Amino acid sequence: MALRELPIKPFVQGWDRDPAAIAKAIERGAIDHGSAALHEIVRAADVVIVATPVLAVCTVFEAIAPYLKPGAIVSDVASTKVQIVAWAEATLPFHAVFVGGHPMAGGERHGVEHARANLVQGATYCLTPASEVPQAALDTLQAMIAAIGARPLLLSPELHDRYVAAISHLPFLLSAALVQQTARDERWPEMRRLAATGYRDVTRLASGDATMHRDICLTNADAIRPLLHDMARLLNDLADQLDDATVLHEFFRAAQHHRDEWLRERDAPSP
Amino acid sequence: MALRELPIKPFVQGWDRDPAAIAKAIERGAIDHGSAALHEIVRAADVVIVATPVLAVCTVFEAIAPYLKPGAIVSDVASTKVQIVAWAEATLPFHAVFVGGHPMAGGERHGVEHARANLVQGATYCLTPASEVPQAALDTLQAMIAAIGARPLLLSPELHDRYVAAISHLPFLLSAALVQQTARDERWPEMRRLAATGYRDVTRLASGDATMHRDICLTNADAIRPLLHDMARLLNDLADQLDDATVLHEFFRAAQHHRDEWLRERDAPSP
Repeated sequence: MALRELPIKPFVQGWDRDPAAIAKAIERGAIDHGSAALHEIVRAADVVIVATPVLAVCTVFEAIAPYLKPGAIVSDVASTKVQIVAWAEATLPFHAVFVGGHPMAGGERHGVEHARANLVQGATYCLTPASEVPQAALDTLQAMIAAIGARPLLLSPELHDRYVAAISHLPFLLSAALVQQTARDERWPEMRRLAATGYRDVTRLASGDATMHRDICLTNADAIRPLLHDMARLLNDLADQLDDATVLHEFFRAAQHHRDEWLRERDAPSP
Repeated sequence: MALRELPIKPFVQGWDRDPAAIAKAIERGAIDHGSAALHEIVRAADVVIVATPVLAVCTVFEAIAPYLKPGAIVSDVASTKVQIVAWAEATLPFHAVFVGGHPMAGGERHGVEHARANLVQGATYCLTPASEVPQAALDTLQAMIAAIGARPLLLSPELHDRYVAAISHLPFLLSAALVQQTARDERWPEMRRLAATGYRDVTRLASGDATMHRDICLTNADAIRPLLHDMARLLNDLADQLDDATVLHEFFRAAQHHRDEWLRERDAPSP
């Protein structure tokens, strides 16, 4: 949708296994043309963006591999990168170029009916190229990302996965765990009448797609596991310090400071 | 502000120790009249709402006690109730009526410049009366709450404090702990560029006032402590199950279900 709002529009084709989704994508102006025949879509493409749940990416790579034209650039938008890069190396032809991608923006609703052109506006867009990727392919992707208003950031797949475990997967798990802990309380039917905007925001991610998050955990377990144990330790420590006014105040003040600093940097105009 | 938008406006007076805050409150239309002289404000009041951080409430009770007229209704908006009710019983005169109050709505910014008339619109507003409170006083407060668009809910101070520990204080602590855990990472300056709307929402409460949250923890430690230990156990269990696709999917699906069900009930029109 964002690409099709550019002054010079690229020709955007879409594939989905569900023809109804293709029809809706055309109706919403997300694509110029769509087809449920993958080879038709892939054959002419200069850039192929695979946007499926993590565990489906490998299947799609296998399906598109025979049809990629020489020099075609393949990228994805999945939430973990180490596994994806390994699959790309194992399945995609040498005449194509793969660069892992991950736009740091999203909503808890999925499907083309929840798509919006400004979703990645101002967002960091990670690219995790292997060392041998030609500069021209990187330039193309970075120009595309900048054109739709996002900020490209190059980093290794390993570092990417460690970072998102902390700033994305752990927040989701806390969100889901909070819902589960409160909903398991026998008094939840009355208790939930008190839950307000704070509860709503902290638990927002828990409304996200269960399959997508399962796949994320399965493909990034090694990075997520130590963070969960660290958090458990931190909460047990806090529980032991709930009577210590000085410790609590310092902890809360520091959290406030770090978050506000992050928000300021985030909202600052692009360099 | 909400009271002053009613068709039949009550006369609203405000007290603050800071004369600048009183001036701003008048400018923003929150009060008809203000004064830094507490006795002036309290002497004529039918209803007195104490809106200060939890630990300041007792001091204000002591300060207003000599000036309350017979039958005056005193309430508050603090986040914990057991301690407040005990203070009210110890400090307020027998000729006044105290009913603890807690509107389940708020923002992470405080001060009159962040006030808005529709803050409690549609929100649950807890009242925690002692058994001997006259029905007429309860009727007055419930009518006032309904008039500004909130939903009064009567419950005991003990149950209130247990509920808010789970749906308000625990979410705040998770929010602050997440910021602290991520900000302590040596790679935070780069990592934070990937943090997006998910991180922003889960950590929103961490930007709240540190003093207010410290006071909340100090006055509700007994209810919060076991919840922190439960959450730590839940996170350690999750860490051990990150390779189990079935367990993960069921956990995430259940969380999604419970949250969506809560949202549906919350957004349903008032009975």
